[in-house]
Amino acid sequence: MNKPIKDLQPIKVEASPFPGSKKVYEPGVLFPDLRVPFREVALQKEANEPPVSLYDSTGPYTEEGFVPQIDKGLPRVREKLVLDRGDVEFIEGRKVKPEDNGNVSAERLAPEFPNLPKVMRGKPGHKVTQLEYARAGIITAEMEYIAIRENIRRKQDAEVIRDGEDFGASIPDFITPEFVRDEVARGRAVIPANINHAEVEPMIIGRNFLVKINANIGNSAVTSSMEEEVDKMVWAIRWGADNVMDLSTGRNIHNIREWILRNSPNPIGTVPIYQALEKVNGVAEDLTWEVYRDTLIEQAQQGVDYFTIHAGVRLAYVHLTANRVTGIVSRGGSIMAKWCLAHHKENFLYTHFEEICDIMREYDVTFSLGDGLRPGSIADANDRAQFAELETLGELTKVAWAKGCQVMIEGPGHVPMHKIKANMDKQLATCGEAPFYTLGPLTTDIAPGYDHITSGIGAAMIGWFGTAMLCYVTPKEHLGLPDRNDVKTGVITYKIAAHAADLAKGHPAARAWDDALSRARFDFRWEDQFNLGLDPDTARAFHDETLPKEAHKTAHFCSMCGPKFCSMKITQEVRDYAANMTDNEKADLEAATGMAEMSQKFKDMGSEVYIPAEPAE
Amino acid sequence: MNKPIKDLQPIKVEASPFPGSKKVYEPGVLFPDLRVPFREVALQKEANEPPVSLYDSTGPYTEEGFVPQIDKGLPRVREKLVLDRGDVEFIEGRKVKPEDNGNVSAERLAPEFPNLPKVMRGKPGHKVTQLEYARAGIITAEMEYIAIRENIRRKQDAEVIRDGEDFGASIPDFITPEFVRDEVARGRAVIPANINHAEVEPMIIGRNFLVKINANIGNSAVTSSMEEEVDKMVWAIRWGADNVMDLSTGRNIHNIREWILRNSPNPIGTVPIYQALEKVNGVAEDLTWEVYRDTLIEQAQQGVDYFTIHAGVRLAYVHLTANRVTGIVSRGGSIMAKWCLAHHKENFLYTHFEEICDIMREYDVTFSLGDGLRPGSIADANDRAQFAELETLGELTKVAWAKGCQVMIEGPGHVPMHKIKANMDKQLATCGEAPFYTLGPLTTDIAPGYDHITSGIGAAMIGWFGTAMLCYVTPKEHLGLPDRNDVKTGVITYKIAAHAADLAKGHPAARAWDDALSRARFDFRWEDQFNLGLDPDTARAFHDETLPKEAHKTAHFCSMCGPKFCSMKITQEVRDYAANMTDNEKADLEAATGMAEMSQKFKDMGSEVYIPAEPAE
Repeated sequence: MNKPIKDLQPIKVEASPFPGSKKVYEPGVLFPDLRVPFREVALQKEANEPPVSLYDSTGPYTEEGFVPQIDKGLPRVREKLVLDRGDVEFIEGRKVKPEDNGNVSAERLAPEFPNLPKVMRGKPGHKVTQLEYARAGIITAEMEYIAIRENIRRKQDAEVIRDGEDFGASIPDFITPEFVRDEVARGRAVIPANINHAEVEPMIIGRNFLVKINANIGNSAVTSSMEEEVDKMVWAIRWGADNVMDLSTGRNIHNIREWILRNSPNPIGTVPIYQALEKVNGVAEDLTWEVYRDTLIEQAQQGVDYFTIHAGVRLAYVHLTANRVTGIVSRGGSIMAKWCLAHHKENFLYTHFEEICDIMREYDVTFSLGDGLRPGSIADANDRAQFAELETLGELTKVAWAKGCQVMIEGPGHVPMHKIKANMDKQLATCGEAPFYTLGPLTTDIAPGYDHITSGIGAAMIGWFGTAMLCYVTPKEHLGLPDRNDVKTGVITYKIAAHAADLAKGHPAARAWDDALSRARFDFRWEDQFNLGLDPDTARAFHDETLPKEAHKTAHFCSMCGPKFCSMKITQEVRDYAANMTDNEKADLEAATGMAEMSQKFKDMGSEVYIPAEPAE
Repeated sequence: MNKPIKDLQPIKVEASPFPGSKKVYEPGVLFPDLRVPFREVALQKEANEPPVSLYDSTGPYTEEGFVPQIDKGLPRVREKLVLDRGDVEFIEGRKVKPEDNGNVSAERLAPEFPNLPKVMRGKPGHKVTQLEYARAGIITAEMEYIAIRENIRRKQDAEVIRDGEDFGASIPDFITPEFVRDEVARGRAVIPANINHAEVEPMIIGRNFLVKINANIGNSAVTSSMEEEVDKMVWAIRWGADNVMDLSTGRNIHNIREWILRNSPNPIGTVPIYQALEKVNGVAEDLTWEVYRDTLIEQAQQGVDYFTIHAGVRLAYVHLTANRVTGIVSRGGSIMAKWCLAHHKENFLYTHFEEICDIMREYDVTFSLGDGLRPGSIADANDRAQFAELETLGELTKVAWAKGCQVMIEGPGHVPMHKIKANMDKQLATCGEAPFYTLGPLTTDIAPGYDHITSGIGAAMIGWFGTAMLCYVTPKEHLGLPDRNDVKTGVITYKIAAHAADLAKGHPAARAWDDALSRARFDFRWEDQFNLGLDPDTARAFHDETLPKEAHKTAHFCSMCGPKFCSMKITQEVRDYAANMTDNEKADLEAATGMAEMSQKFKDMGSEVYIPAEPAE
């Protein structure tokens, strides 16, 4: 039925190192075989600085000399780690059924992945989830991997300057494996890592860690193909996506997902109801618990790392959306609302929630409790429907935790700036500090074509307030499916938001990056500026539009001011001057301008407005 | 010496109405001849809604049938209003000198504007500035124009729903001419409108009005021409720039500025020290008060509406920047710092500040007190140098006010999110609520090529906190001079930031726009979505990439989900269902889920987290 694999064109994805960068690996201590990746940016000779290490979520695709073999998949490094724990067993997996791919005809069937791994499942009565291990006091290999990763090669004894407002987060100066374990144990962080996704490089989502971002890809009934989706996945992680959600609808969902999973070093999330709906030909009222259950198992055995589950869309909340400007805008939410109304019954995801937990626990699939009633417009933000659902998600969080499952909570949506913090505060209070995972939020509705920006603003803010993962929005939001360029723009925008949040929270690993880039900027080390930037290609291209010659890469000026006058140059003269000033001269100057008083005033204002400068000599 | 004007190619600028929109004008009551412009967006028939009115700062260039005549300039409508007050006289203006254009050779001289207006100046002892009129209790034509403009055609008796957090601003439900006058009188708002810029459509900058944005253009020693700069100016205002700063350096500064002023319906700002520096061949230490004074008069007589003046870079503050990561990054700031050091004297802009006021008052040029010591990196934010200068700007504000001059204050720069609010609070406290005008701020340094986004985040936040005007940053920031595309991207990004701020402040005129667009979105009125968007062209182009056919413009689905399943469609079913529910049925449902309690809890949380929905029937 499938196209023979030999007829497949070789699938091309972008694989090359970042300019000026190499991938380096750190080993573990508890698990010496671990190879935790970092991107190391070498600086120009004149910098006289060591290379800069950056968090690297790009997988082997940015390794020197790596040749992707998409039809083989990535090495399944994690399989051994999982097996070593002795809690899982190989099983005969569920067989693929025609409806898994939407009963597509043979000639339109996406090829089956040719190198299917064997399916693993937790042995009855054994721990399988990271939460269960953490509660048992066990540090898993994934936890040590993450601890090393989150420190970005800072040493434990390195000096730490804390400068930020973290709104009650508890970010330590240094991340130990024990800290990772404890955060997972109390549910404040999740490690989305299905035992069957052995290609995954473990990462963590939690308020006391670096803020993460998610990119959505996926084909629809209208457009796109397997090749495109695999390419988009690799492209999204190249630019910084920590997680990718495959939101495919239409046909070939099963097969496309297999290719994505086998080639993704990052966790993959899905919304299983989308595929379940395809299995009942798109008729929401025909959905049944049995179809849904079968879909959960199908996807869990493939290795999906987290499931969005809209179990909070309760029958009683549906009418609360009736007078909204934009009703129910979540696809999953509206599917469930329709089902509830058609049957006048409680949401079957709610009534079967414990059974869902039992399935997810066996493979360590993390819950992403969906916000099916999120606001789709500024007018609908923070309304009763939204918050009623959030209360239910809090209730379900406790059920899932009791079952040993990891949980994160999805959040909005469209929210004006003054209503963003209330979302975070309410989520923390209601959901026992389970990680919050928000879509934006968009801070205005008036800019179709620019919703990466309307939402980047909200994302940075809610990340600062405590959201652990930010789901990107691309320029195509509300208008069409994102292409490659949109994916990149969305990812870069959200890396900005996440990093701005890390800085504002005072994450101790955040600011070194900004400082390194600013020193390069100040010294006119153009290559370093490009290479340290989030997007070296674009930075270089923009620079070269005005000053293309190679000589200009070392020029101590730029096209804004030109060579005749340069504000940066003057600072060197200021430094020489200050270095030659005596204390008396400084005191005289200060007295002349009343600065001594002023200086005291600054000090009185406290650290949130004034960070003392280094003494001038 | 000039190129004869007949040799000039006709200068092309974009002039066309926005799709689906027409320009309409409202008359004044006190000044019946006023024609206050609005953009009126007609909606699709099926909307069954009246057209939507939007604030329109695009000038006649978006009027149906308008043919720009760049070599004639725009109609000087305001000249009569100014003359009618009887306080100004025509004078023999200062003659253009070769150094005004950088002593450029005849063949490289930009053409002189062929239709020079006569120069006006305040009569000795007469009021000339909007501040002086306001203090005298006089409502000027400009004030009435602005009052009408700011209400965006809302009626005084229209119902107003206030929903926002304004941090102590005093935005009224309806803007009257008296309110405009009173805000100007107390220095909380400025109307940048040089009496010689008779082409200007008056606008206001103040915390209790809509947040405004500024776009920077200008040639440099390295690149660009008069034609390009005029085109960029028109292009910037097309997309929403309320003000434009001409930051030209290099040659032809005088002539290029004349073309810009004569064709700009929006206020134009400059940094006079840039031109003064050119006059002394780029050698900062050769600057003198006389050269600077002459430049102020030159530019004031041309009609520049506001001057950035770096009078706060005092000698005593210069050494405070010595240990910064990025020293002094403001061009004007570093010029003055260099001058101070070279002569070991106090900044001559500070020592001659009262004389500067006397000149600016005669033409009603507004002060934009420059932040020459603004931070150029996250590391340098909110440091002693920055805040020492801000204290001085507060002092100078009082001097300028005493002289009858209008004042706004420039702000940073690069500031992480957690340090933004302190900037606003300190500015309000130090500068007597004079309007704050900030550059971004950029919330991280790591994204060269995307600094419109790093800064759009900060701009939205500081706008919410009370900043009255946001100076845009384009994608080329730190890398090169912005081209046309960059200008557009920068402007749209900042329109988003400004509007998000208006929404969050609860500006009563803000939300109607979002709601109109969201209703259009919900109803699948694609044309209305495009036309109501900030950038209809891009929204339409993005949509058409996936679903190009005309039929799809009326399709009740989009490419994200396709025709088979649509979440928007389901809401109609929800509405039908809710409409048929009895109160008893709702009560039963609520009881079944514990919602009655929850509902009370929401109410207890107060309005900032919960805006009550309309009752369901």
